[in-house]
Amino acid sequence: MTSLDSWENGSVTSDSNALPTVGVVGGGQLARMMYEAALPLGISVLVLAEESGMSADVASVASGDYRDVETLVRFARGVDVLTFDHEHVPHPVLTELVAQGIHVQPGPDALKFAQDKAAMRRRLEDIGSPVPDWEVVETQADLEKFLAEHGGEAVVKTAMGGYDGKGVRLVTSATQVEDWLSAGVELLAEEKVSFRRELAQLVARRPGGEVAVWPVVQTVQEGGVCVEVIAPAPHSTGRVADVAADIAISIAEHLGVVGVMAVELFETTDERLLVNELAMRPHNSGHWTQDGSVTSQFEQHIRAVLDLPLGDTSMIAPWAVMANLLGGTSEHQLTKRFKSTMQEYPSVKIHLYGKATKPGRKLGHVNVIGAELDDLVTQARGAAAMLVD
Amino acid sequence: MTSLDSWENGSVTSDSNALPTVGVVGGGQLARMMYEAALPLGISVLVLAEESGMSADVASVASGDYRDVETLVRFARGVDVLTFDHEHVPHPVLTELVAQGIHVQPGPDALKFAQDKAAMRRRLEDIGSPVPDWEVVETQADLEKFLAEHGGEAVVKTAMGGYDGKGVRLVTSATQVEDWLSAGVELLAEEKVSFRRELAQLVARRPGGEVAVWPVVQTVQEGGVCVEVIAPAPHSTGRVADVAADIAISIAEHLGVVGVMAVELFETTDERLLVNELAMRPHNSGHWTQDGSVTSQFEQHIRAVLDLPLGDTSMIAPWAVMANLLGGTSEHQLTKRFKSTMQEYPSVKIHLYGKATKPGRKLGHVNVIGAELDDLVTQARGAAAMLVD
Repeated sequence: MTSLDSWENGSVTSDSNALPTVGVVGGGQLARMMYEAALPLGISVLVLAEESGMSADVASVASGDYRDVETLVRFARGVDVLTFDHEHVPHPVLTELVAQGIHVQPGPDALKFAQDKAAMRRRLEDIGSPVPDWEVVETQADLEKFLAEHGGEAVVKTAMGGYDGKGVRLVTSATQVEDWLSAGVELLAEEKVSFRRELAQLVARRPGGEVAVWPVVQTVQEGGVCVEVIAPAPHSTGRVADVAADIAISIAEHLGVVGVMAVELFETTDERLLVNELAMRPHNSGHWTQDGSVTSQFEQHIRAVLDLPLGDTSMIAPWAVMANLLGGTSEHQLTKRFKSTMQEYPSVKIHLYGKATKPGRKLGHVNVIGAELDDLVTQARGAAAMLVD
Repeated sequence: MTSLDSWENGSVTSDSNALPTVGVVGGGQLARMMYEAALPLGISVLVLAEESGMSADVASVASGDYRDVETLVRFARGVDVLTFDHEHVPHPVLTELVAQGIHVQPGPDALKFAQDKAAMRRRLEDIGSPVPDWEVVETQADLEKFLAEHGGEAVVKTAMGGYDGKGVRLVTSATQVEDWLSAGVELLAEEKVSFRRELAQLVARRPGGEVAVWPVVQTVQEGGVCVEVIAPAPHSTGRVADVAADIAISIAEHLGVVGVMAVELFETTDERLLVNELAMRPHNSGHWTQDGSVTSQFEQHIRAVLDLPLGDTSMIAPWAVMANLLGGTSEHQLTKRFKSTMQEYPSVKIHLYGKATKPGRKLGHVNVIGAELDDLVTQARGAAAMLVD
């Protein structure tokens, strides 16, 4: 591996290959978009995918099991740093990689908090981040007690492996998670927060400590899946923006996060911000940065994990709106209205992931930037609806 | 080949492969940046390169001779449309491809005017485009006569194959092109235009006729090579912008250009705009659009050659400045100051072409956008100088 220091100091040869290579574990859309962002910089991205998936045609893809240390070690040999498209690489595997001298960013000590919601909640309380009331529940009695103390309602989450609404249930009785309890799945109960809206704060951090935040955004969820993002979050200027940024920077610094991290937040009806979830990688709530910020979250993640100086996170328009393209239940095809959508929405930027259609699956997204928020929301929703119709 | 009509009408299968494939002849930076622009759209780009060059690691590259009909026919089999990174494919080869039913854009009837400067000058005069005085010169006597009629100075150009200052000489005597004349090279003499500055007008046109222009830009040349572009050209609002756009649209329409065309213009000291050169492909004068326009010239070229609706060409900031990264004579390496440049210029977007350094070679460019032109020029020049230093 070429170290970045020797590279910067000129001790490497003068051909273009002197630029570093990033290895991304996982072949989903985040890997694909990291590859897209790295291309103009001349930085190479290699992908380790479980199967030859949507990244296969766009990046150099190795195939292999991300739970297998030997596979990861072999993959890591050709790269300067290992980073991630998802958070599923088991913690013992990550620590073994580090023990073998492999450069992993974000590191296992940070990543464990994105993998284990109980550990995350505990750590966030320790560092003073505002979180909803929560408890680990091991028995029906634990959960009934929590329900009794929280108005008879709670959000129960599996500590490990949940995403996009999976592993999350709103319950009013302990019997509703009997299956999880009897299977011995580690669970936590959280108060059902009375929130006005959901926000997300994106932050990037380099190993040396440099941090950069984008403006806090508003996310709109349907069935636990993000469908729309507005940047910046309407009427967030001032207190909300400052508090959100402070929370994210504090978490990034205390947890030693390297790369991009998204902090999903509730804005409560009584004006507080509470941390909902963490993702230690580029995140759906930051896709707008591809077209709405000087530096996209994908370029920034590449910079950060390579310990390169972070780019400017300023917005390049007053507003940016992102709408996801979610696979429908019908026999529709995403590309059928491609031409019509371009015709109808010449300012909308289309981002497709090269995936086959599946109900609810994230197949792509659209971004649009400008000065009139209302018009941008109409455009983004209209283009997304037309593409997936 | 999948026709775009059947594709739009839904008669193709519903997987992501229903999106079309563009074949690019030539493996230079323009092919590379077309590939970059096509990626988010889910459109595939295949490249036919003479040798496995800078595109090899970023796109599917076939290797072969672009002057060989059989090679091109074989390459074209896997694509929906054939387009170009350069203008060197011989005209007879192009017409043979069309005769064999291959979809070539821009077509030979348009491309010949970008290949043959004498034909171009003749055609532009026919359609009423303003051009410098010019004559085909076949003998020393022809050229001496032209010199006598134009103040003893003329620009002599080879009709075919010139670019970046090659095939162009400023002469005061016919003896200065004796080598060209004795070699039987077709030449034209042009008046040495007294110009205030050089401009470039980028236009895109679809087969159906839709056209789109970006704002006219100012280009700064050194030794016949573009080093800097300012968009829009300072104090061009109004007459200059309108005239430049009208000239480019008129040429695109009369010549039946499909794809992006750059019209290089002189703004004369007596306030006229004269056409200098045409390029029927994305062009160095349009690299700023990658970061300064809603739709880049590369995305627009892909859209146009596929007969997809053109994207919005609005600027996303008041100003955009591009500076080229030209290889120096020393043993410098482009990547040596990569990190320092990122540190010093967090708002500058770096675009590298993956090429080995060679004196004067275009190795990449930087773009920067914003509201203060003077500051942007300083940033672009500073970042470019630091990278190639």
